[in-house]
Amino acid sequence: MRTALTEMLGVEHPLVGFNRSPAVVAAVTNAGGFGVLAASMYSPTELDAQLTWIEEQVGGRPYGVDLLVPEKFAVSDPDDLVASLRAQIPAEHFAFVDALLDEYGLPAHSAPRGEEDALDEIAAAINPAGAQALLDVTFSHRIAMVANALGPPPADLVSRAHADGVVVASLVGQRKHAVRQLEAGVDVLVAQGTEAGGHTGTVATTVLTPEVVEVADGRPVLAAGGIATGAQMAAALALGAAGVWCGSVWLSSEEDITPRPVKEKFLAAGSSDTLRSRTMTGKPARQLRSAWHDAWDRPDAPAPLPLPLQPMLAGRAWNRVHAAAAEGHPGATALDTYFIGQVVGGFTELRPAAEITREMVEDCTRRLRALGELADT
Amino acid sequence: MRTALTEMLGVEHPLVGFNRSPAVVAAVTNAGGFGVLAASMYSPTELDAQLTWIEEQVGGRPYGVDLLVPEKFAVSDPDDLVASLRAQIPAEHFAFVDALLDEYGLPAHSAPRGEEDALDEIAAAINPAGAQALLDVTFSHRIAMVANALGPPPADLVSRAHADGVVVASLVGQRKHAVRQLEAGVDVLVAQGTEAGGHTGTVATTVLTPEVVEVADGRPVLAAGGIATGAQMAAALALGAAGVWCGSVWLSSEEDITPRPVKEKFLAAGSSDTLRSRTMTGKPARQLRSAWHDAWDRPDAPAPLPLPLQPMLAGRAWNRVHAAAAEGHPGATALDTYFIGQVVGGFTELRPAAEITREMVEDCTRRLRALGELADT
Repeated sequence: MRTALTEMLGVEHPLVGFNRSPAVVAAVTNAGGFGVLAASMYSPTELDAQLTWIEEQVGGRPYGVDLLVPEKFAVSDPDDLVASLRAQIPAEHFAFVDALLDEYGLPAHSAPRGEEDALDEIAAAINPAGAQALLDVTFSHRIAMVANALGPPPADLVSRAHADGVVVASLVGQRKHAVRQLEAGVDVLVAQGTEAGGHTGTVATTVLTPEVVEVADGRPVLAAGGIATGAQMAAALALGAAGVWCGSVWLSSEEDITPRPVKEKFLAAGSSDTLRSRTMTGKPARQLRSAWHDAWDRPDAPAPLPLPLQPMLAGRAWNRVHAAAAEGHPGATALDTYFIGQVVGGFTELRPAAEITREMVEDCTRRLRALGELADT
Repeated sequence: MRTALTEMLGVEHPLVGFNRSPAVVAAVTNAGGFGVLAASMYSPTELDAQLTWIEEQVGGRPYGVDLLVPEKFAVSDPDDLVASLRAQIPAEHFAFVDALLDEYGLPAHSAPRGEEDALDEIAAAINPAGAQALLDVTFSHRIAMVANALGPPPADLVSRAHADGVVVASLVGQRKHAVRQLEAGVDVLVAQGTEAGGHTGTVATTVLTPEVVEVADGRPVLAAGGIATGAQMAAALALGAAGVWCGSVWLSSEEDITPRPVKEKFLAAGSSDTLRSRTMTGKPARQLRSAWHDAWDRPDAPAPLPLPLQPMLAGRAWNRVHAAAAEGHPGATALDTYFIGQVVGGFTELRPAAEITREMVEDCTRRLRALGELADT
């Protein structure tokens, strides 16, 4: 399949695999797709090591990096960012999360202070200055694409990428956002429907994809959200996309680093078991519904805080929940969750990422041929 | 295009046009699609006249009827259904609606008592006994399909339809609902994604359609929600559907009877301007967001009532709103709304329903051929 995307990136298949696990990125890339590493939750040092590792695996094949660079960000004391942000989290919120963990029988907080600081620094780095350090690492590697998921990229990111021959991609959830991204100089638009995992809007892929194609003025548009099979990939191409951007499907891969208890919840879940919630990051993000969300829905629960305060608050809880769930703690397992799209309902087993890639492309190709034949019946 | 649906119904195109306007049903049918009349808001006498008129227009071509037959329905006094139901509406709710209309400057209530009674009787008829009268009218005509949108059809509906050679279709929003519908003997499943107008669930068409196809065991599945163009129709076929069930797109047709001020709001709306709300029927239904929904979102607003109490409450407001909006009343225009899916964002003008049908089918066919060619590039 040759599309505007395969031509632009020099890849075999119009399939982008977005994941935080370097092994998934390498496997998708080596299977002829285009792997993109979700880099925002890594420190610059970690990111550097991972990109080096990916490049060792993929032998010159192109791959990409995805960052969160928000447009606006209020810092009251730029000299001490983490302390300034921590001071903005109300005591009521800390008390609510502590009481919730206690209610579910989680062990008293024992993370070393240094670990918490590291977490907070990563959450606090979701801002233009913090992203700069990750961008410096990114551009020191031979990436083919840099993607951004929170609004239009800053002008210096675009000019730096274009000077290096790097494609700039952006995720959008509304037609008007696509227009703003194009004005900012973005090369590839990812139309992310509401059924997608992670930060997502309310418009579905069937409706959003043609809207973004219409305003893209010939630039490649990828469909994201609801795409985990060859049939869904064929549907995205039917909607006018030049390819697909898949995130959730890799959470059913063997290589994905999501804790095993969460992956087992994914395998058991149906497509109605996700929700859009602000309780993880401060912005609406689709995730698996768990006891965590039930608690935040109670009348006495505080309202979630904005980004990056909510991830700073939630992050320290999640470390404890993940660790306890990994040891089979029932309360932690009830609370545990992660970002996932509605395609989770189709997960039946964990498979190698390369096998998922190959099967999606083969099924899509067969489906496209069958559709061509249907036209003349 | 020959699919399991065109074979089953004996129609030219795998495109079902669902609408409450007899002229739309006739136009879609005469253009080679399959028109289905939304019959629930009509009295038996009105329905009889409309089906007679449709049959005069379509000259022997097959068409269908859609009813709302809920599974469960509580009646405290079956001898006086309307009075019993009216008595269940709290005074607080009447006061809220009256105050809202007053706030938007709507004229004092002047509908003759008889007109209100007729409205209430129609709303109250959304129950197995009430639907029976509409079914009797329906089966006295030469229909090819009877569809139901509220849970599995009663056993006598299925046996009566099958004895007459009439296909039974049902709308479903979750995989488990599809399983129950098949157990009830349904012949055609309509997988209705969250992006659809009217009563709809939370799972998107891209995800729901393949799930329903998987459990349908060879029976035709139609995709609904997010389908208003040939590209979207091609995507539905890629997802494994045997055809499409379109509702919203006909609200951009010239023949549709929706009041002109509402249709003008549709033409101006974007795909993000809809919401799922219980405030019209008591069940979550997608509609255009208006000042009506803002009012029900206020902290002092009562919770919407269950079906059929909420439509009895809202119905008398809507008669006044529609009438005043038709005369250009600004407050009424701000409140006015109707059921519509996210495809509303693509509406640019009102066109004949036959032209919409032809263009969708032609664009879909072209798109399918192009997809077949893409497979071998």
